[in-house]
Amino acid sequence: MKRIHIEEIKNHIGEEVVVAGFVQVIRDQGKNIKFLLVRDVMGIVQVVVLKSEENAMEVADSLSTESVIEVVGLAKEEKQAPQGFEIAAKHIKVLSHSDPELPIPVFEKGSQEEAEQSIRLDWRWIDLRKPRQALTFKVWTAFEAAFREYWVKNNYIEIHSPKLIGAPSESGAEVFEVKYFDRKAYLAQSPQFYKQMAMAAGFEKVFEVGPVFRAEPSFTSRHATEFTGYDVEISYIESHHEVMAEEERFIQYAIRAVKEKYGDEIKKEFGREVIVPEIPFPKFTMKEAKAILADMGVPSEKAGDLSPEEERKICEYAQKKHGHEFVFITAYPASVRAFYHMREENEPDITKSFDLLWNGLEVTTGAQREHRYGILVKQAIEKGMRLESIQFYLNFFKYGCPPHGGLGIGANRMLMKLLDIENVRESMFVYRGVKRLEP
Amino acid sequence: MKRIHIEEIKNHIGEEVVVAGFVQVIRDQGKNIKFLLVRDVMGIVQVVVLKSEENAMEVADSLSTESVIEVVGLAKEEKQAPQGFEIAAKHIKVLSHSDPELPIPVFEKGSQEEAEQSIRLDWRWIDLRKPRQALTFKVWTAFEAAFREYWVKNNYIEIHSPKLIGAPSESGAEVFEVKYFDRKAYLAQSPQFYKQMAMAAGFEKVFEVGPVFRAEPSFTSRHATEFTGYDVEISYIESHHEVMAEEERFIQYAIRAVKEKYGDEIKKEFGREVIVPEIPFPKFTMKEAKAILADMGVPSEKAGDLSPEEERKICEYAQKKHGHEFVFITAYPASVRAFYHMREENEPDITKSFDLLWNGLEVTTGAQREHRYGILVKQAIEKGMRLESIQFYLNFFKYGCPPHGGLGIGANRMLMKLLDIENVRESMFVYRGVKRLEP
Repeated sequence: MKRIHIEEIKNHIGEEVVVAGFVQVIRDQGKNIKFLLVRDVMGIVQVVVLKSEENAMEVADSLSTESVIEVVGLAKEEKQAPQGFEIAAKHIKVLSHSDPELPIPVFEKGSQEEAEQSIRLDWRWIDLRKPRQALTFKVWTAFEAAFREYWVKNNYIEIHSPKLIGAPSESGAEVFEVKYFDRKAYLAQSPQFYKQMAMAAGFEKVFEVGPVFRAEPSFTSRHATEFTGYDVEISYIESHHEVMAEEERFIQYAIRAVKEKYGDEIKKEFGREVIVPEIPFPKFTMKEAKAILADMGVPSEKAGDLSPEEERKICEYAQKKHGHEFVFITAYPASVRAFYHMREENEPDITKSFDLLWNGLEVTTGAQREHRYGILVKQAIEKGMRLESIQFYLNFFKYGCPPHGGLGIGANRMLMKLLDIENVRESMFVYRGVKRLEP
Repeated sequence: MKRIHIEEIKNHIGEEVVVAGFVQVIRDQGKNIKFLLVRDVMGIVQVVVLKSEENAMEVADSLSTESVIEVVGLAKEEKQAPQGFEIAAKHIKVLSHSDPELPIPVFEKGSQEEAEQSIRLDWRWIDLRKPRQALTFKVWTAFEAAFREYWVKNNYIEIHSPKLIGAPSESGAEVFEVKYFDRKAYLAQSPQFYKQMAMAAGFEKVFEVGPVFRAEPSFTSRHATEFTGYDVEISYIESHHEVMAEEERFIQYAIRAVKEKYGDEIKKEFGREVIVPEIPFPKFTMKEAKAILADMGVPSEKAGDLSPEEERKICEYAQKKHGHEFVFITAYPASVRAFYHMREENEPDITKSFDLLWNGLEVTTGAQREHRYGILVKQAIEKGMRLESIQFYLNFFKYGCPPHGGLGIGANRMLMKLLDIENVRESMFVYRGVKRLEP
């Protein structure tokens, strides 16, 4: 007989079925009857074991919670059971025995009983058994599938750019060094240079999904040393406004897909009402944002850039003023942006760049790129770059390259905001930080 | 006016259109007329420039090939033009000027005129402008999208496992070392341990697409130090035969999708007739394979494993005997397989594992995994593993873990076989090898 998932039982009432999963709860009801709660990836079911079923009772007597079992039994309606039905066990087989001493409890019985985060991260796979944690990754699967669906439908080409690179890119700081046979390599901090290479190759529109590596000694709830990046680059644009318009479309598309598939479950597990954002998103220039923040009495920590506190406050403002969870900040000064961001023709200190904030958190950085070789070299020198370490990149612009722009999205930060997860560590399958390389 | 793609011109005959792309050819036809061939990501079009259009002619006179231009002009039918139509230019704008001295030619005029591979790899983005190269990555996009579509439809959860790991996994050899703050990290050779962790978390079916890193000093046409892996793991299996059956289904699904979308173009550019494989694929045990090869007079280089030559020959046999491009080899001896491959109950020297070969090349390794803690530890010790470096992994099996199995696919090797590409370097956006970290 073929195993069915627990959510399918309702279609098999009165039939003998096979289910398999983890034993979540074992409850004795006197000597002659035992109740088990068995959990698979789709749901939880009550299994009743009667003494008259000797084989089943014998196995049930030996069970520890979190063991994995297969149950053969009769599917019945039962009003008192959690989901309105139960299985009367005929046979139980232990597929995997759990040590009875679990290092962390699987069930969230309120935060005060939950183990500390760092301990839960040590035993990540046990923590991931909680329905809320599993839902996080089901939602991510649907979210990413929707982004990709948009890109593939719209004739983007997918690239897989190398993570091992020959010279520290972008700045040289915060990059991991790798022993590479008889020389050194570095881990790519982003696919930036390579997605621009794809533009020089004439690919026109590309996307990449992959790990990015940051050797930042940060311990905040927003940072990790390795996380998933979504990168997009498009050619033949007039300005960064086209990049923003495209981002609005695919973010709306992906959030709508998640809401349709998991909106109710997200509401139940996370208490979060997923909102499909309207287009266009509100936009403020940096100058406008700083003026609004000054009006709100929020101190400016750094000219031309927003602190985490300012990001939260400007989002509160956008929410209040425009009823929108997203806000673009544009027109960053050249001083705070990368050398390859294109400048405004009439305001050479202002870049054609943007950040996207979602409910208080930066989730995207984007820009039109400088594709004119001479100007790009000049800007690199201004920023104090060593040209020899980026010459391979500069060469991309010597033999014809369309005007282009793009953006990078922090996938884990998007997931945090999609589900109201407070700490990025809970939005990663396995978190990596300065002090954490395990499991 | 909005730019259109070259393949859309046929729908705009008699209208003024805007196209943009790389100047592939510049041909003077006397003093009063010039022909350009302009290439975008979708096609190539002839642009005719007449002296009477002064602006256009002035720009055309200054052009170098591979510059990027925008052309405004009248779309006309023209039987002598490559695709049966042309654009009579009114205005031409140079978006990006190319150095007239190209380091490699963009056009393949037969292999003897093509630059050497290593030089083409140096200038990868120029080489990628060839239609055949661009098609490779369009096909990859469709191929990967189809695999993912299958997995998502069938309720797989996508994971993004860490590439930075705390201890050299699997064997310890052939692993890159990373300077990680005040300690060492290593680059994951595969997501093996982490997809098994997902099984212990109860995710039941997962897939991952991501880079894998191999510090192998190999210089063959099949090896790279970084490539894209597709990884799949599924729970509640009876044996590795279920894993093979699932792989047959998603490979068939993905090849069918590519054939529908790009079959004709692949035929034209690569001379390859894409064949949707029939299910089930032929299967030989290692013992059967060795007997067949002995009959064919192919020398056995290593007991219990196949050499590249044996892989080619057994595929020739499968093709002849079963008319099939794929063949599974099963029942590898434990001596040549990883410690975590499950053994046959009645033949403890034989693993429940398989390789999949496609037209002479190994493209997959898979197995049922040993999920029983005690047996797994015993097998690890037998293989001489240092238990402390894999204890984090062994722990996954202490607190309940369903029986499971899975496989890893080399995406680039699949692409090689899909398109009859002879060298893996041509199947990567940017190749990485022992001596190559650039561009």
